[in-house]
Amino acid sequence: MKVTEKETVSLIVSGAWVLTQNPDREIFSPGAVALKGEEIVAVGPPGDLHKRYAAGKVLDYPQGLIIPGLINAHTHAAMSLFRGLADDLPLEDWLNLHIFPAERHLNGDYVYWGTKLAVAEMLLSGTTTFCDMYLWSAQVARVAAETGIRALVGEVLYDFPSPNYGPPAAGLLYSEELCRTWQDHPRVKVAIQPHAVYTCSPELLQQCGDLAERLDARLIIHLSETNQEVADCEAKYGVTPVGHLHRLGLVTPRLLADHAVVLTGADMDLLAAGGAGVAHCPESNMKLASGIAPVVDLLARGVPVGLGTDGCASNNNLDLLQEMDTAAKLQKVHRLDPTALPATRTLDLATRCGARVLGLERQVGAILPGLKGDLVVIDLDKPHLTPMYDPYSHLVYAANAGDVQTVLVHGQIVVQDRRLLTFDLEETLARARELARTLHK
Amino acid sequence: MKVTEKETVSLIVSGAWVLTQNPDREIFSPGAVALKGEEIVAVGPPGDLHKRYAAGKVLDYPQGLIIPGLINAHTHAAMSLFRGLADDLPLEDWLNLHIFPAERHLNGDYVYWGTKLAVAEMLLSGTTTFCDMYLWSAQVARVAAETGIRALVGEVLYDFPSPNYGPPAAGLLYSEELCRTWQDHPRVKVAIQPHAVYTCSPELLQQCGDLAERLDARLIIHLSETNQEVADCEAKYGVTPVGHLHRLGLVTPRLLADHAVVLTGADMDLLAAGGAGVAHCPESNMKLASGIAPVVDLLARGVPVGLGTDGCASNNNLDLLQEMDTAAKLQKVHRLDPTALPATRTLDLATRCGARVLGLERQVGAILPGLKGDLVVIDLDKPHLTPMYDPYSHLVYAANAGDVQTVLVHGQIVVQDRRLLTFDLEETLARARELARTLHK
Repeated sequence: MKVTEKETVSLIVSGAWVLTQNPDREIFSPGAVALKGEEIVAVGPPGDLHKRYAAGKVLDYPQGLIIPGLINAHTHAAMSLFRGLADDLPLEDWLNLHIFPAERHLNGDYVYWGTKLAVAEMLLSGTTTFCDMYLWSAQVARVAAETGIRALVGEVLYDFPSPNYGPPAAGLLYSEELCRTWQDHPRVKVAIQPHAVYTCSPELLQQCGDLAERLDARLIIHLSETNQEVADCEAKYGVTPVGHLHRLGLVTPRLLADHAVVLTGADMDLLAAGGAGVAHCPESNMKLASGIAPVVDLLARGVPVGLGTDGCASNNNLDLLQEMDTAAKLQKVHRLDPTALPATRTLDLATRCGARVLGLERQVGAILPGLKGDLVVIDLDKPHLTPMYDPYSHLVYAANAGDVQTVLVHGQIVVQDRRLLTFDLEETLARARELARTLHK
Repeated sequence: MKVTEKETVSLIVSGAWVLTQNPDREIFSPGAVALKGEEIVAVGPPGDLHKRYAAGKVLDYPQGLIIPGLINAHTHAAMSLFRGLADDLPLEDWLNLHIFPAERHLNGDYVYWGTKLAVAEMLLSGTTTFCDMYLWSAQVARVAAETGIRALVGEVLYDFPSPNYGPPAAGLLYSEELCRTWQDHPRVKVAIQPHAVYTCSPELLQQCGDLAERLDARLIIHLSETNQEVADCEAKYGVTPVGHLHRLGLVTPRLLADHAVVLTGADMDLLAAGGAGVAHCPESNMKLASGIAPVVDLLARGVPVGLGTDGCASNNNLDLLQEMDTAAKLQKVHRLDPTALPATRTLDLATRCGARVLGLERQVGAILPGLKGDLVVIDLDKPHLTPMYDPYSHLVYAANAGDVQTVLVHGQIVVQDRRLLTFDLEETLARARELARTLHK
């Protein structure tokens, strides 16, 4: 008699390649990942894993490239309802004649369905975590919980009354309440999110910082996005937006600066010294003509940089595969250096660096035992991904959202063979179309 | 008795939208296109067309956006075999250590299968016409004829011996022979294609110009792609590359300048005065860190500009939907002007302007009675294309290659519901993988 004993696991996912994005940038080809419930327990050659584990379920993709789920470090998900409503306009006309009037129609229902629409797009294009700043953020959290995606959400805070929570002081209470509501959720977390230095008084910023400290939450703000913002801040406070936050004691490892396009060397030194992170949104910065963020300089100083799409009104999609491509190429042409931001480093922005800037590096961003099972399978059996010499190159420079085949979040299969499993896509599209008709009037 | 008489047509394609790209930029929603064989006979509301025509076949896409087939104004299709072989390197290392050594392995078989792989990718991403410059261009023409795509092909010519045709003089004969072979083909045309001013003597350029004149063919050349090229040309000939061609009498409506990145105002004036066209390749120019072409300035001077992907070694895909997105955004950030190169103008580059720079404006580039039936249906039933306010915006800023549903070239259905109908995709992928293994050694 021969006795074979194997540890049981819930799922083994295998493919032609696994890019672990672990500290050694280990690759297995072929490769497999074993999961117990929501947790990754092993990664390695498929033969080894099948020898060690008996799996309740096996998903095998002989032409699949398995990567960590992509992380969108900055967006306004519900703005998916404004996609294509207005483009190619001067910034003021775009905001004052189109976006702000459309936003006046908003309520929790719009935000619920707009976010759901965005989550469908994100999951189907390989994004498993998103960081959101918007109004009615309780609805955003609810959608994240319901759909199976991972999210860091927050209510946008400013000096003027909000159509959601009312006066500014109520915004802080709303944020605190939201934070407590979701504190034990495995996938949904809350951050404190003042809008910007030009819409928040130093007092409000300080209160936000104090609240973030007290709740041990991220402090997230649009920062140094445009030349105008920097000029106005210098005129009003005598310092750059980064310098302004620094004076307020807010440039800490808790801080995530969205955009960070217009930075001085001193600004970058302050961000680095403070341990703050940056969410880089190249396509939005290009489309709104804000400028080109000094990503290579930030990385050289050790500032962690994640990748964001920004909202759909200024991109106009939530596609991180395309965003990686643009990010890498934009740095190269900006610096006239083809070696700037290579494919490997670019994938870092959308995976492990993204996790770090959101404070989620102990949960996601790599395929590593102990981390959560957020995985994406890319189908390589396509002409534009053939032949295959280098999976990093294909991911960053050749793949598109239509190549995402299967997606897991927290160990749950949320997309399988391009079908959303966790909610009704048709209903979501129908509701979005219906709401759009009322916005367009 | 009631007699109803209808004209018979071979096919009616209908959808939620038709963007005609005709001179008035007419849109029909819903819309339909009627074809007789290879020719478009009518475009308009579906009801009108069905009243006037009895169609042998009807393709109805209730959620489809119908556009003219996209036109790739500059590529090296067979370089699909080098996709991802080497990236993120200094230009010299990339060329001398990777691309040139790989190209030494080439023969007609590589070019045949590499081009076929590229055609599969192009058709599946909505490209119906491509302009190719490469070696063994007889194979490129053969693939175009076999696969149903439309092509303007040419043999790359330079001062040194070619592994295909041998000595430079033989290149001119080869080009002439190629031109005569294909002169009556409905979809395949031939251009004279000297490589660049730094690889072709003034004598060779002159001979190419004379040949193009004699054969009434396009003269296509890489021109002013990099700072280095311009500096070398100025050192050697005392003028810019455009000035150099002008002195040789080659800046005429026959000329198509690929890249045209590093241009003076005088260069642009010369191109405009000469009636020459430009093939803009933003992603390649970004990835190789060549610079940003002054597209807005060229268009302002009336220079027709098409859009190209360049080869897969420097992009790394042949996806014109993504290329349009990048082109529009790059001009905006380059000029710090969000109104630069709006979505409508950007679609022009990839359709009617592309046709014009290739000399094909009497055949393709718009959905217009009398032109050939080159059509693409984009599936709008996707979260990232919902809701729909503006089809131009969705096409340029939100759609991806995976949204291309059905494609017609010359009235023939070449892709239907994402399946290639004209050749064996599996065989093509298998042969490409096999050849790639020999290149990689």
